[in-house]
Amino acid sequence: MSAFDHWDALWRIGRDTTTGGYRRFAWTPAELECRQWFEEEARRRGLEVERDRNGNIWAWWGRPGPSAVGLGSHLDSVPDGGGYDGALGVASALAAIDLLKARGAEPSRPVALVSFSDEEGARFGVPCLGSQLMTGALDPARAVGLVDQEGMTLGEAMAAAGWDPGGLGRDDTGLGRLSMFVELHIEQGRGLAEDGAPVGLASAIWPHGRWRFRLRGEANHAGTTAMDERHDPMLSLARLVQGANHEAHRCCGVATVGKVHVEPNGTNAIPSSIDAWLDARAPDEGGLDDMVEGVRSAMAQPLAGGARSVEVVQESYTRAVHFDDALRDRLRATLGDVPVLPTAAGHDAGILASRVPTAMLFVRNPDGVSHSPDERITDDDCHAGVEALARVVEDLACR
Amino acid sequence: MSAFDHWDALWRIGRDTTTGGYRRFAWTPAELECRQWFEEEARRRGLEVERDRNGNIWAWWGRPGPSAVGLGSHLDSVPDGGGYDGALGVASALAAIDLLKARGAEPSRPVALVSFSDEEGARFGVPCLGSQLMTGALDPARAVGLVDQEGMTLGEAMAAAGWDPGGLGRDDTGLGRLSMFVELHIEQGRGLAEDGAPVGLASAIWPHGRWRFRLRGEANHAGTTAMDERHDPMLSLARLVQGANHEAHRCCGVATVGKVHVEPNGTNAIPSSIDAWLDARAPDEGGLDDMVEGVRSAMAQPLAGGARSVEVVQESYTRAVHFDDALRDRLRATLGDVPVLPTAAGHDAGILASRVPTAMLFVRNPDGVSHSPDERITDDDCHAGVEALARVVEDLACR
Repeated sequence: MSAFDHWDALWRIGRDTTTGGYRRFAWTPAELECRQWFEEEARRRGLEVERDRNGNIWAWWGRPGPSAVGLGSHLDSVPDGGGYDGALGVASALAAIDLLKARGAEPSRPVALVSFSDEEGARFGVPCLGSQLMTGALDPARAVGLVDQEGMTLGEAMAAAGWDPGGLGRDDTGLGRLSMFVELHIEQGRGLAEDGAPVGLASAIWPHGRWRFRLRGEANHAGTTAMDERHDPMLSLARLVQGANHEAHRCCGVATVGKVHVEPNGTNAIPSSIDAWLDARAPDEGGLDDMVEGVRSAMAQPLAGGARSVEVVQESYTRAVHFDDALRDRLRATLGDVPVLPTAAGHDAGILASRVPTAMLFVRNPDGVSHSPDERITDDDCHAGVEALARVVEDLACR
Repeated sequence: MSAFDHWDALWRIGRDTTTGGYRRFAWTPAELECRQWFEEEARRRGLEVERDRNGNIWAWWGRPGPSAVGLGSHLDSVPDGGGYDGALGVASALAAIDLLKARGAEPSRPVALVSFSDEEGARFGVPCLGSQLMTGALDPARAVGLVDQEGMTLGEAMAAAGWDPGGLGRDDTGLGRLSMFVELHIEQGRGLAEDGAPVGLASAIWPHGRWRFRLRGEANHAGTTAMDERHDPMLSLARLVQGANHEAHRCCGVATVGKVHVEPNGTNAIPSSIDAWLDARAPDEGGLDDMVEGVRSAMAQPLAGGARSVEVVQESYTRAVHFDDALRDRLRATLGDVPVLPTAAGHDAGILASRVPTAMLFVRNPDGVSHSPDERITDDDCHAGVEALARVVEDLACR
């Protein structure tokens, strides 16, 4: 299943044959194969390929230089992710260039296609690593020491892949070449499906963050330890899950406990400890803070038989993003009266927006499903996205 | 730390250097090393070593044959288990033989030391595999196809370790040689500590079982999926944990959710499915069935935003065990007025009790902690256990 020929090879990389979902985690063999795919596709088109200091890959249509129009997204995935999240933006940027070339267009200013590194944060816990490092939003000393589930640091993982982690950090030279940035992405909700529109534009990104709850109990025998003598972190996990659900409803946001790590995870042993990750998002920062504070205070209440201690670590926090009004108006003038809608999903475009005028193009997701093997899109909408992106690039960079 | 010289080598096998707990799962390299240790220690004492068809290892003091007195326990562990659970029984049996030999005793009937295979069921989900297969309590066709977390079957794991899985199943010849069986085990509660006694005898084992709850939801994006559009199995897990806790209190039993498997386990993805294991035990079968039925019916209620489906699979069920009164009275006559107490922990002795007069000796656990790296015992109590076992063997087999 593919809307473009050049996508055929990418479809096969990092796909779990059982679930049909993708497992392209930063700096793993599957993700490195995706990087290679992008570089080869770029070179095949005569685009000049550059690897920057933060793990991102750039491909230039026209001579690399200032006042460039940036396009792109990411190729990594969540565990068992869909095939469009990120990849659609990268593949569509290549297809848009193909379309413009076929129509005889020439860039009057450079167009920079980028594949950002580790947008999902599936391996090291922090999303948008490549864009956050580039813009200076993330401390490189913290980033290099981030640890995956197996205890390997980001620095070690990059080095093992042949990339130098020594240069990580704010890259004003690289950013300074961009005059604007446009990310095309599959919509991760049903807004466009309800509006009956194949493409739309983003107004804003909800603020969002990740918190790790470390629930420490006391390992013991599941058979011989009386209920009243237990310190079972699983009971505290149940409270966290229900507290997050309650607070999300109260604050009109969303809250998810999607990742849990239980030690020792034995059928007949009360767990010694559980780490659980809370992903929380809300329309504004006040609502988000209120929601997370509500969860924290629920977890601070005594719980008979629960964990001995609860520690909360904020792993990431991204403020609300309001995309550039002027750039969005210009895209809307090019594309006609397409819908404009907010999203609760984080994106590299949201990170870049703090430094560069930025816009996002969404392509219709008929079911609203994403971060799932069931994520899908129609071929027609896929082509509509490429056409829209080509028209945007033509308007911004080809006259 | 060791009460006997021959235990020194065993202490080092399969120990996690971070937690200090043991990870000796059936047919893994660590567990195979434990088997080798037992065989070498047995041969060093001139005991004849036999491997039976069900993965158990036997070492004979005296000529293998009928009317034997069986002694022993197991060497595998739960994840992050303590060093005494099982191993104390095997090491003490060897030490008791040493003591009797040093005292010039000779067996007037054979004494069979046994290390049972996969008592904990940590790898394939079913406890007491070796003894259940031997007694015919477990269907060998089911056993051979049991699958571990990596998808390897018990049959494959045995074959990879050089054991033939083709012979698994009821072994009346082997069992027929035993006239009785005595298992020494660390107590997994504080009964003896409260009585101020170093050793005691078991009256009964609570009935117990394991149930796997398969909670199937719908994977989706943690940011963009509205709370009301979710089918999140994590909410159902919270209900399971709280339901089990509630029912255990109501039925005066114990219930534990100690093992959880979340798919895909990503921070920003609503889980597609969760498998959670319920370990439940009660003083009698009526109470156990009532408790589990209570949990099942709580899980059958509709839950807004929870899993789309809940499937329950009973993975094991062990009826109440009442140990042989005559044998216990004889041991009590030998050992003096030691405490007699029930336990909620399953043991190979509980399996054998259906076929052979069986008794259990418990050694004091000062903290009551087990299935934990914090499990401990004093050297004095360790020696008291060996002395008691030696006196029992002398009484039963040396005159």
